[in-house]
Amino acid sequence: MITDVYPSREDEFANWLDRLDPVIYRSDVENAPISAEQIASFERDGYLVLPEVFNKEEVSVFKKELQRISQLPEVLEAPSAIREPDSGALRSLFAIHRDNELFSRVARDERIAGIARYILGGDIYVHQSRLNLKPGFKGKEFYWHSDFETWHIEDGVPRMRMVSFSILLTDNHPHNGPLMLIPGSHKQYISCVGKTPDNHYQNSLRKQDFGIPDAGSLSEMVERHGIDQATGPAGSVVIFDCNTLHGSNSNITPSPRSNLFYVYNSVENQPVEPFGKIAPRPDFVAERGPVEPLKIEPQRYTG
Amino acid sequence: MITDVYPSREDEFANWLDRLDPVIYRSDVENAPISAEQIASFERDGYLVLPEVFNKEEVSVFKKELQRISQLPEVLEAPSAIREPDSGALRSLFAIHRDNELFSRVARDERIAGIARYILGGDIYVHQSRLNLKPGFKGKEFYWHSDFETWHIEDGVPRMRMVSFSILLTDNHPHNGPLMLIPGSHKQYISCVGKTPDNHYQNSLRKQDFGIPDAGSLSEMVERHGIDQATGPAGSVVIFDCNTLHGSNSNITPSPRSNLFYVYNSVENQPVEPFGKIAPRPDFVAERGPVEPLKIEPQRYTG
Repeated sequence: MITDVYPSREDEFANWLDRLDPVIYRSDVENAPISAEQIASFERDGYLVLPEVFNKEEVSVFKKELQRISQLPEVLEAPSAIREPDSGALRSLFAIHRDNELFSRVARDERIAGIARYILGGDIYVHQSRLNLKPGFKGKEFYWHSDFETWHIEDGVPRMRMVSFSILLTDNHPHNGPLMLIPGSHKQYISCVGKTPDNHYQNSLRKQDFGIPDAGSLSEMVERHGIDQATGPAGSVVIFDCNTLHGSNSNITPSPRSNLFYVYNSVENQPVEPFGKIAPRPDFVAERGPVEPLKIEPQRYTG
Repeated sequence: MITDVYPSREDEFANWLDRLDPVIYRSDVENAPISAEQIASFERDGYLVLPEVFNKEEVSVFKKELQRISQLPEVLEAPSAIREPDSGALRSLFAIHRDNELFSRVARDERIAGIARYILGGDIYVHQSRLNLKPGFKGKEFYWHSDFETWHIEDGVPRMRMVSFSILLTDNHPHNGPLMLIPGSHKQYISCVGKTPDNHYQNSLRKQDFGIPDAGSLSEMVERHGIDQATGPAGSVVIFDCNTLHGSNSNITPSPRSNLFYVYNSVENQPVEPFGKIAPRPDFVAERGPVEPLKIEPQRYTG
């Protein structure tokens, strides 16, 4: 029985706990795949934007594949496909590291997985992956949350030893609903108020209305740290810690936003029974093992 | 009978018409209350941000009055009050230039009305005024539109000889759902597709789903001109032409946004029968005269 060091959704009020885990698990920066400044910045802020990691041709290969699969009936009707409530258009597709040949190569790409392995200090695997589409004109907002709170309470991941990579497939401007982050928020754990309803995940993937920080805690966090927007051209990568508070506003501009999203976990931090004492979510949302350490390799994608 | 030079909501497709009216009605820039560069920039872009026109003390006087009136039952229950569909909180309050002593002084303030009189070339009056509140955490988006299209079709204003002033009462950041504008869009008139339903105004003030430009026209406009966000500290003023396309995304940040909004019209451009052949909107939304030219005066507000 593993002790729950990050309890949540148990009280009528929010608790702020200090983070008990490192942000960067290795300290030999001379061997890091990114610079010492970038490492320090990630440690301090809980996120980092790497501009144009993937070149234009690679992005166009990814987008062509995205276009292709988002039209396939077997993809649209799969449980791993989350669709817009009104239009039925694809909003997210889960488990792309498992079900898609191209996107499983991306999961093992040294340019991202190599950084994840350094940050998490050793062998890693993919806890969750997805393709996210935020349409132009009517892209919905996504409310503030810590991913780790969900992965801990609903999936049973014990500790903060996870990191997310978002590969931007479209240009992200300040005006088209980009990812917003609260720098430094990853160093505190804010427990959420209230209890998780059954089958919560089916609704939460569309619209987050539970397992979210209370307004008072958010105001205090923003008061202390401010808000940053992660913007950059297509091909850029946003890396963020599993406990960094983030969200996004709606997007009424004609410019859609799409990204590939990979969450890495340390093989030493595999899920146990969910700490929220609920049934675990399906394995296309949260890998439950047994897992193999990822084979990280150099990759190139050509049209 | 006045000819409708800007028809809209009549066809199954959008028409693009060239603007037939000046943007700036006077040409003696040496007498303008703003610089020649600012005049040229407004003429070219269709908007202009003037930083900190009102000082901190004045803003705090405005906000105190806003706080006071937004709690009054007689204000909340008036037809001129538009409230959030879910919470019932005040979202907009119309006709503040008429019903509120302080905000009617602001309407006549030389610092804004003097600029409006120059731009519109002569005597002016207030066609519409309102107080806008966009709450933090759950501020809704407002879809793209040209104000003139509505004022022409629903209110019967014949020509483009109107200008709007938004006085920011809160800091506007790129991330808290600020006003977005398409620079240069004021030089074309895009007719909207479809016919206006009866009593459309009651819904449209909450959520714009009619009398909006089609997606194809918006994409083309943004392709040509891009998108700009009007940001600045509280006390700043955003001036924009009646035909500039604008909108705003939602606001999940803790920072609310509020502003005072005044629309000036030339006394030579008073409304006739609505060109959409519908009943005119109530006079708290659109002044129908007879009007008196505004008495413009220097003003100062102290706590």
